[in-house]
Amino acid sequence: MRLALEVYMVPGIGEIGHGDDLVTIIAEKCGHGLRDGDIIAVSSKIVSKAEGRTAPASQREQAVEAETVRVVAQKRHAAGVTKIVENRLGIVGAAAGVDSSNCAPGTVLLLPSDPDASAQAICTALRNQFGVNLGVLITDTLGRPWRVGHTDTAIGAAGFHVLDDLRGTPDAHGRPMEASITAVADEIAAAADLVKGKVSQCPVVVLRGLQKFVLSAKDFGAGSRHPSDSGAARLLRSSAEDMFRMGSDEAYEAGYSAGRRASAPG
Amino acid sequence: MRLALEVYMVPGIGEIGHGDDLVTIIAEKCGHGLRDGDIIAVSSKIVSKAEGRTAPASQREQAVEAETVRVVAQKRHAAGVTKIVENRLGIVGAAAGVDSSNCAPGTVLLLPSDPDASAQAICTALRNQFGVNLGVLITDTLGRPWRVGHTDTAIGAAGFHVLDDLRGTPDAHGRPMEASITAVADEIAAAADLVKGKVSQCPVVVLRGLQKFVLSAKDFGAGSRHPSDSGAARLLRSSAEDMFRMGSDEAYEAGYSAGRRASAPG
Repeated sequence: MRLALEVYMVPGIGEIGHGDDLVTIIAEKCGHGLRDGDIIAVSSKIVSKAEGRTAPASQREQAVEAETVRVVAQKRHAAGVTKIVENRLGIVGAAAGVDSSNCAPGTVLLLPSDPDASAQAICTALRNQFGVNLGVLITDTLGRPWRVGHTDTAIGAAGFHVLDDLRGTPDAHGRPMEASITAVADEIAAAADLVKGKVSQCPVVVLRGLQKFVLSAKDFGAGSRHPSDSGAARLLRSSAEDMFRMGSDEAYEAGYSAGRRASAPG
Repeated sequence: MRLALEVYMVPGIGEIGHGDDLVTIIAEKCGHGLRDGDIIAVSSKIVSKAEGRTAPASQREQAVEAETVRVVAQKRHAAGVTKIVENRLGIVGAAAGVDSSNCAPGTVLLLPSDPDASAQAICTALRNQFGVNLGVLITDTLGRPWRVGHTDTAIGAAGFHVLDDLRGTPDAHGRPMEASITAVADEIAAAADLVKGKVSQCPVVVLRGLQKFVLSAKDFGAGSRHPSDSGAARLLRSSAEDMFRMGSDEAYEAGYSAGRRASAPG
């Protein structure tokens, strides 16, 4: 057995407030432990808190609406309404990412205003300060339509390849791989969540062993030229490719209305 | 920084053929390296190969059809048809898991016949042989409707809690968490894939640091009594809870036909 991937907790981050400088805090808590090829996974909650992205809990519904671009599907049940929406970042998920867990009582937390830009800023500052090539990932928790439970995913990324496009790479038998693009950034977010958890206050985790995905200083400096270079926005499927743009009930109802109109006399 | 999770490659597994005994092979390659609390992630490909779950490549379409219970959505494009189906295991994904990468030329590989049972058999044998409490996970690669790329997920599991149900657990501010159930088994599959990759021949990976999810000898012996105890089938959303049971186009068309019929004179 050969150790290939290590995931480190970064203890002592503490409670983050509006205006706190995440770069200074992360740099201090990681100390000189950071190495070339490390990827730092940061919970979106602390990025939102540092940005002051809160709203009063009494205005939760308005906050969800303001963050929503489009309702994809909704379902009424005993406890209320589950709304799956596309938010202003293009992410499809419940309640546009507005969350009331792990934030100050009486408030709800919105997603960071531009998670890719936040990741880029943190990544640039840490690369400069420590002189190492590293990646930064901002994570959030998302549900899945056909599977129970949530997993953490990447909503912001910088400094590493978020996708591993293996199409055409020879497999173990020398045949080119079919439709194989690995969502590396989402797999990293999931691995980080195994260490972070949801209740322990550990919003920052360092992953070591993924250097093959981390951009060199030269490529990082040149910006993202390749589609899989960096930026979690690249993980969002375009609407033209989306076979589940509406919930089944919503699409059925839209079709039904159109069918009735088409058959209406006159 | 404190090391919290380690992921080990298990080298030397080699090519697996029909009838090979995976327990003996994994036990030999892991040697006495296995410890209490370890979780072993096994690629479904080698389970399928050991079970002889292959078909001639010329009968790929028939194999997909035989594995399919229900077509969820399909889309025609230049390269052919993408079919999202529910397979006989209840998993929703492309082509019912029938795959032609990394299998013998001229053949395609089907999913294992009962991945939860395979995980249970491997887990029981390894627990008995090494006298340690460990978990076994069988992984496969799945796409996601709204996100680009694939991630590895759990299709078989034994010996550990596949879900971490945090509903009602106090958060950092002492408030009970809302709808928070973490799909631990899928996050473990994703973490394992970061080490396995798709082209390197490393179908077995060991994760160390997740002992809190691993069942004690007593709980394992007693079978799964708690809903989140084990078994990857528990990760499948029931159709009553599924808001995306049909593709948008398919649901729209069904609604349109029904609307026309409802308006038809006479």
